[in-house]
Amino acid sequence: MTTEATTSTTHPLATQHAQVLEEVRSALASRRWFSRYPDSPSPRVYGETAAADGLAAYEAHLGTAYAGLQGQPGTATFVGSEVSPYGPTLAVEYPRLDVDAALVAAHAAMPAWRDAGPQVRAAVCVGIVDGINRRSFEIANAVMHTSGQPFVMSFQAGGPHAQDRALEAIAAGLVEQERVPASVVWEKPAKDAPIRMRKDYRVVPRGIALVIGCNTFPTWNAYPGLFASLVTGNPVIVKPHPRAVLPLAITVEIARKVLTDNGFDAALVQLAAEADDEGSAKDLVERPEIAIVDYTGGSGFGEWLEREGAALGTLVYTEKAGVNTIVIDSTDNLRGVLGNLAFSLTLYSGQMCTTPQNLYVPAGGIETDEGHLSFDEFGSRLGAAISRLTGDDAKAVELLGATVNPQVRANAGALAALAADSGGTVVLDSRAVTHPAYPDAVVRAPGLVALDVSREDIYTQECFGPVSFLIETASTEQSLAQFAHTVREHGAMTAAVYSTSEEVLDAARDAAADAGVSLSENLTGSVFVNQTAAFSDYHGTGANPAANAAYVDAAFVANRFRVVTSRRHV
Amino acid sequence: MTTEATTSTTHPLATQHAQVLEEVRSALASRRWFSRYPDSPSPRVYGETAAADGLAAYEAHLGTAYAGLQGQPGTATFVGSEVSPYGPTLAVEYPRLDVDAALVAAHAAMPAWRDAGPQVRAAVCVGIVDGINRRSFEIANAVMHTSGQPFVMSFQAGGPHAQDRALEAIAAGLVEQERVPASVVWEKPAKDAPIRMRKDYRVVPRGIALVIGCNTFPTWNAYPGLFASLVTGNPVIVKPHPRAVLPLAITVEIARKVLTDNGFDAALVQLAAEADDEGSAKDLVERPEIAIVDYTGGSGFGEWLEREGAALGTLVYTEKAGVNTIVIDSTDNLRGVLGNLAFSLTLYSGQMCTTPQNLYVPAGGIETDEGHLSFDEFGSRLGAAISRLTGDDAKAVELLGATVNPQVRANAGALAALAADSGGTVVLDSRAVTHPAYPDAVVRAPGLVALDVSREDIYTQECFGPVSFLIETASTEQSLAQFAHTVREHGAMTAAVYSTSEEVLDAARDAAADAGVSLSENLTGSVFVNQTAAFSDYHGTGANPAANAAYVDAAFVANRFRVVTSRRHV
Repeated sequence: MTTEATTSTTHPLATQHAQVLEEVRSALASRRWFSRYPDSPSPRVYGETAAADGLAAYEAHLGTAYAGLQGQPGTATFVGSEVSPYGPTLAVEYPRLDVDAALVAAHAAMPAWRDAGPQVRAAVCVGIVDGINRRSFEIANAVMHTSGQPFVMSFQAGGPHAQDRALEAIAAGLVEQERVPASVVWEKPAKDAPIRMRKDYRVVPRGIALVIGCNTFPTWNAYPGLFASLVTGNPVIVKPHPRAVLPLAITVEIARKVLTDNGFDAALVQLAAEADDEGSAKDLVERPEIAIVDYTGGSGFGEWLEREGAALGTLVYTEKAGVNTIVIDSTDNLRGVLGNLAFSLTLYSGQMCTTPQNLYVPAGGIETDEGHLSFDEFGSRLGAAISRLTGDDAKAVELLGATVNPQVRANAGALAALAADSGGTVVLDSRAVTHPAYPDAVVRAPGLVALDVSREDIYTQECFGPVSFLIETASTEQSLAQFAHTVREHGAMTAAVYSTSEEVLDAARDAAADAGVSLSENLTGSVFVNQTAAFSDYHGTGANPAANAAYVDAAFVANRFRVVTSRRHV
Repeated sequence: MTTEATTSTTHPLATQHAQVLEEVRSALASRRWFSRYPDSPSPRVYGETAAADGLAAYEAHLGTAYAGLQGQPGTATFVGSEVSPYGPTLAVEYPRLDVDAALVAAHAAMPAWRDAGPQVRAAVCVGIVDGINRRSFEIANAVMHTSGQPFVMSFQAGGPHAQDRALEAIAAGLVEQERVPASVVWEKPAKDAPIRMRKDYRVVPRGIALVIGCNTFPTWNAYPGLFASLVTGNPVIVKPHPRAVLPLAITVEIARKVLTDNGFDAALVQLAAEADDEGSAKDLVERPEIAIVDYTGGSGFGEWLEREGAALGTLVYTEKAGVNTIVIDSTDNLRGVLGNLAFSLTLYSGQMCTTPQNLYVPAGGIETDEGHLSFDEFGSRLGAAISRLTGDDAKAVELLGATVNPQVRANAGALAALAADSGGTVVLDSRAVTHPAYPDAVVRAPGLVALDVSREDIYTQECFGPVSFLIETASTEQSLAQFAHTVREHGAMTAAVYSTSEEVLDAARDAAADAGVSLSENLTGSVFVNQTAAFSDYHGTGANPAANAAYVDAAFVANRFRVVTSRRHV
């Protein structure tokens, strides 16, 4: 073990990626803009044939038994039931993991990975992400046809943005481990000679980590936990959502290849594909070998996981659901507000965990650069902006994508009932859009329901998909109070405010701090409240019920490893 | 909120303690020796009258209603049932906290403390610890007569060592908060002009923290959690063990005074004294206002706490119980080994959470610089060393202190039964020692029971107090395997190895890494396995069942605050 420091600095990989690692350390410390992976799918960036090659690689998986996971302990049976939200059946079959054997293999792989040290682990992890980046177009198609995201979003969020988040997790884990010196000579003054001891600090992993993927962002939400656990020395079992396996199968394949290419055991990353409705996550979580769980998904399972994890002594990081909120007070750029909001609500049919759901508007209306708008007028204008943005089916589907599951479709179809139940009105119904290329896709444009602030019973429930509420309040003061209150109680991943008043903005910042949610102010351009940038914006805060962790802060990584000291006199 | 950075750097307190804060940041990063508070109770260090003044101050509390907690919301009733393990009844009465009002007051105190920023909070916390240091002799007497520690230990562990641990927690919390910049201008390259946003990062506390003190180290084990929570912005309610209230009452009094002297609300630190066997910790933990709990004590309540905390979304840091282990293989300094071990076992009658309990010795005996010793011979020699060290009652009590509770006394009295139950032998019975000054004190020297390695049912239970097991193994290899296995299953705060073989030492380091416990090697001088030094040695690892956290690593502080961003275009 005492050679760890030597290993870390002389391993060829550590040199190979030294510059990247320095860049990501610095980016994380400053929180300035940083990106290693260009997010433009342009042929000028990724090459003339990249898009076609990626599509062909994706299509080559269809109707086959997934070939990239040789060497995983399997049960000689296969699972796979992915159907694209755009219509086609993927018909990819994945080898079913032999969980007992996989846990044994992961455990056996741990000591060499542990003893390689943080720098080598970080370098290997960068190698994995670089490998993922090279297959961005293939993964983009896989993300599109599992999540229902439109293609460009699948490419950006499922590819480079997810890869940058992976790098961020690697950087955060590396920095946190590097804060612990490898060794020190401790010298305490004493009467005669000082007492001198050498102390070696050894970073040790927690154990085997489990990443539970989600349907809507299979890579973006899985990578932070995957790489945070891996860089801190923990083997990882990836349990994808049964309807979004392929993007993570490709990811695991790449990880295993890069690990073995660098002399490490492929068992450090394994895929536990399951059949639809099999519910294997619960069984995996209850295995005593599992020490860490990262989860993105519904609140019910997330809450069970938090309780059960604690009972088992397992670290649990969750991103669940909440009610994302916007407070609208006033603006000097109404067109900008409407354009920005319409886009935020439209993107991926509101199926982002960051899409605004609750928009608080005062009953007396708002002041704008186009004059005073009543509550109803603001609603009409926003509805019109959405209709304009999504009016052309062929263009709309490039923003909307396809609805991912029956619940989203049910929500989108229930606006009239929601309005009736809540004594409110349908400001804009969720329009059925026909996809020109995929006639079986169920595509829905955003809808708006106006209701009174008293109907907490309706709007404090997450209504996932293309449904948002215009909530009529007595005043902006009430909007802010209700914003803070509902987020404290029900959680939120995002919040925004529009106001020309510095006082209101200050009050909104305080309300956001009280609620424990990050705030976007007066977004009227090309940045949207739904989006966060790796290395700069935290995704979630861990300070409200929507998530118990944030991508990627120190708390997300610091507990994934422990330090074991050995000390002796010198 | 945007003035936080300004406040932090211009506040007079931040300047006042700037040098200390720089010293502790640096000490923590290097893990070199650092101490702000001298641990010698010598008059040359603390002043000629310090000891007498401190004793007088302590005695002035006896038989009175505690006067230093004015302003705490009370119920106009008092509690207090402390009886010194040395005999005398303290008869101090503490105002009972009105918990509802206390939580409201703590909540109201939070925003100003939050907005003061990390540097000001750290400076105020240093001011509190400096204030505590000035009352070290008073606190030492309070620790002695609640824990039963001998006086010098009460002074050192209860005073300067605890104070250095407090500083360490302050440093760790400060550094972790400072890693988050207050503000950044984020500039993303774009087609035309870059997209520029200002992002302000605001450190926000979790909520109200609860510190649950223990009987044996009322200050040393309470300060890390107290100061880690406070420096990260959380108000703290201190719930002392009902038999060790006074040291924490004095602590809370000082904290409240320093807080108000610096313009902050005294409600940031409040004392929740309770009557013996009242069990108020459970009620406090279940209050939804409590966001963080730090606990030292028995495993039963600790495990409940970990489960319940998770169910409630409360962060829980525990230090429970384990089976501290020593593997004895060989030595070139037998006298040193015996002297060091005898002292480790004797100190505070084995009532430290770090005292070795299980000593593994091969059946074939060990090689030493005095020749080969059989298993029995080693036992006899260790027994003799203990007898020599504790043979003189008057001197022995200065090391042993007094037994703290009936369970310890029962354990000390049960060696013959233990030996009979386990098919083992009593190598050294736990001798009853008469305290020359306190005839009512129950004082016990360490006892040793030899038994076979197969009797896991006996030696994997914590047997708190002056009882240790000499466990006969087939070989050092078995000793190491059994060490790793029992620590993984049952936990340990400490471990040590004695060997002249580099191979054995290497294997011991690997076993310790696998078990997740820190290792002391070949201690034969004035450093003892029971002792850890602030800023350099982690206390616990959080990697085995004895504790889910360590004093003080990043994981101990990083989750006590969250970051809320506000971003806008510039």
